[in-house]
Amino acid sequence: MSNALAQTIKAWVYEAGELVLKRKESQLQISIKSSRSDLVSNVDYEIQRFLIAKIESKFSKDKILAEEDKRNSLADMSGRVWLIDPIDGTINFVFQRENFAIMIGVYEDGVGKLGFIYDVTRQKLYWGGPGIGVFCNEKKLRPPKNLGAKDGLWAVNAGMYAQNIENIQIIGENSMGVRMIGSAGLEFISMLKGNTIGYISNLYPWDYAPGMVLVQEFGFKGSGLDGLALKFKDRQKFIVATACAYNEVMGS
Amino acid sequence: MSNALAQTIKAWVYEAGELVLKRKESQLQISIKSSRSDLVSNVDYEIQRFLIAKIESKFSKDKILAEEDKRNSLADMSGRVWLIDPIDGTINFVFQRENFAIMIGVYEDGVGKLGFIYDVTRQKLYWGGPGIGVFCNEKKLRPPKNLGAKDGLWAVNAGMYAQNIENIQIIGENSMGVRMIGSAGLEFISMLKGNTIGYISNLYPWDYAPGMVLVQEFGFKGSGLDGLALKFKDRQKFIVATACAYNEVMGS
Repeated sequence: MSNALAQTIKAWVYEAGELVLKRKESQLQISIKSSRSDLVSNVDYEIQRFLIAKIESKFSKDKILAEEDKRNSLADMSGRVWLIDPIDGTINFVFQRENFAIMIGVYEDGVGKLGFIYDVTRQKLYWGGPGIGVFCNEKKLRPPKNLGAKDGLWAVNAGMYAQNIENIQIIGENSMGVRMIGSAGLEFISMLKGNTIGYISNLYPWDYAPGMVLVQEFGFKGSGLDGLALKFKDRQKFIVATACAYNEVMGS
Repeated sequence: MSNALAQTIKAWVYEAGELVLKRKESQLQISIKSSRSDLVSNVDYEIQRFLIAKIESKFSKDKILAEEDKRNSLADMSGRVWLIDPIDGTINFVFQRENFAIMIGVYEDGVGKLGFIYDVTRQKLYWGGPGIGVFCNEKKLRPPKNLGAKDGLWAVNAGMYAQNIENIQIIGENSMGVRMIGSAGLEFISMLKGNTIGYISNLYPWDYAPGMVLVQEFGFKGSGLDGLALKFKDRQKFIVATACAYNEVMGS
């Protein structure tokens, strides 16, 4: 995919970030979705609409899969698909006003081409894709070490950890420890920086699609926790890790 | 306690932080303590010795309780006691080179007088005490809201969460969620900012003493998880939270 398109999207994401920074000091309008800890704010909607308007103005034939506004399902991943999480980590956004991200992934026929994760309050945009590499703002990043499952920290989902799904507690205990930030985007950034070696959670396509493009560029492997390819549909138990840690955990 | 002493200690902590920033890009010498995920580095030792030298040069009669170098036990908390964690979150320091803190607490006859938590890589020093208030660098902070146990995020210890010690999983499930940074100091900072409402873990005195001075100034309550006063001795299951959340969880 062209670097020109990446530059266009970067500009949109930075602009969306400015909008969030303006809104985040104001009173939010918050609604409950599936449960009292599944929230959406007026800013989630506003950012999603802002980004979709940008995309549709230039690429009207492309498909969009996004968290809010009933844009959250697609028949398939054929053609060019934009995956959008306007505010990833809404609970953090609402309660902390930090530790959230704006995310976009661009896929072609199911193959990741571009990924963008913007840590808005720290003003760090992680972006890139195949043939481009991975950048933080304008700085090209080097891949982290390909560490084994025991030799680093894992990010995990609290509910899955509590229930010891797929022996995730054992993975944690055998490693250097577990961490929980509460934003899939920031967990992917942790992997890009080498802060964590893997991430196990229960995610929607817009949660993992942007980050997967970036960590795959650094040699990480990801799949459903059943070992099957990611579905880009519905919510799914998910693992991504350095190739070495992935193979150790998934036995391949 | 005098603000003059606070200013002296602040200068020491900033100086220690400069030293850490210099060292953190170099090859660390790392030793294993009680288990493979209980580490100490040459920087932990160097910072502790630096701080102790400063204290002993000015306050030779004071007592010191510190994590490393067999300075880790005291008969009692009588007189003026300095509690030091030179690098709180050593695993993060070693694996992430961020998300760790330098911490000092000053107590008199068991009563907290001054606390310092320095988030070194972000160059944010949280400090203060009774009669002074709580500051981030030179900016005075306002206390966060006194939220109930369900109305915010909790920081928890991974091992205790996995084992559901004292029904900690239920506290998590009934709340807005749980978070794990991997540094007691940064968990206290999260509470000072209102990012989390409480913290349940298994801590040593140098892990909780500096932060307790600060959050108590903001009306938080803390104790052993058995409801008894903190022991300032050995490792202890620990809870601290907004007064409202503490009372709801501890039933007082």
